[in-house]
Amino acid sequence: MAKELKKLDELFHDTLKDIYFAEKKILATLPKMAKAAQSDDLRAAFEKHRGETEGHVVRLEQVFEIIEEKPEGKTCAAIMGITDEGAEIMEEYKGSPALDAGLLAAAQAVEHYEISRYGTLRTWAEELGLDEAASLLEATLEEEEATDQALTDIAESVVNQEAEAA
Amino acid sequence: MAKELKKLDELFHDTLKDIYFAEKKILATLPKMAKAAQSDDLRAAFEKHRGETEGHVVRLEQVFEIIEEKPEGKTCAAIMGITDEGAEIMEEYKGSPALDAGLLAAAQAVEHYEISRYGTLRTWAEELGLDEAASLLEATLEEEEATDQALTDIAESVVNQEAEAA
Repeated sequence: MAKELKKLDELFHDTLKDIYFAEKKILATLPKMAKAAQSDDLRAAFEKHRGETEGHVVRLEQVFEIIEEKPEGKTCAAIMGITDEGAEIMEEYKGSPALDAGLLAAAQAVEHYEISRYGTLRTWAEELGLDEAASLLEATLEEEEATDQALTDIAESVVNQEAEAA
Repeated sequence: MAKELKKLDELFHDTLKDIYFAEKKILATLPKMAKAAQSDDLRAAFEKHRGETEGHVVRLEQVFEIIEEKPEGKTCAAIMGITDEGAEIMEEYKGSPALDAGLLAAAQAVEHYEISRYGTLRTWAEELGLDEAASLLEATLEEEEATDQALTDIAESVVNQEAEAA
């Protein structure tokens, strides 16, 4: 039985390194997205989420501590691909009234990646009996879901009106 | 006004090509994941979703037809990154009782990417007055959300029990 549990432990640890890398990448990307945003609401949402992301990094470091591992990232090909697409949008739609719509789409792809990862990690933490880690991961999951909803609200109200306006 | 609307049109078209590429990539990947799956429930879920994915490709081709463009993909760095991570899991956890947990995590990352893209495209289709396209995109979005929920149910019941079992 020990062997099998260790395998899920390893998967948990590997995936923790994946999302730790991703959060750091997002932390570096959000100021660029905030700077590019045309709508005040969108810029404010990116700035608010940057502050939350700093908290997510701290929570991940607490989870590393719980499993007695040092906080360390592992290159996450998924977040690199998602943020590369966002950078491409910023370049191709610079000056376009549709830029904010593109930034929103990129940000929501990031949020959904995180939602899938935190949902998975929270479930695994519960399975592994790591209750405190599960609570930390759940707290971040809820913030990512709230951010995704806030971006949806902005997408449906402000940005698309701008893209349509004369 | 024409110019601005055209910009959102272009973003819609670009993003349609992105998800068309992604769906074709997923279509090629699902049989490998089904073959690797250890649990019958998980294998069945992947096989069912492969059939649905064929339908998603057809719906996207209908949307291309609505906007009078030929169906064509554009390399999607995000889905390449996400599926690369899935391939890595299949390799690293081959023979491990935690393999199915890893496959589920990879599949849910794919689903969430699609959920974000279809949500965005559906909203833009509505904004652009493409009601029929919006309905097609909504239909696929609902199937992706149902698949994600089905994977969560499997993750919480069958697979983690296997990973824990002696």
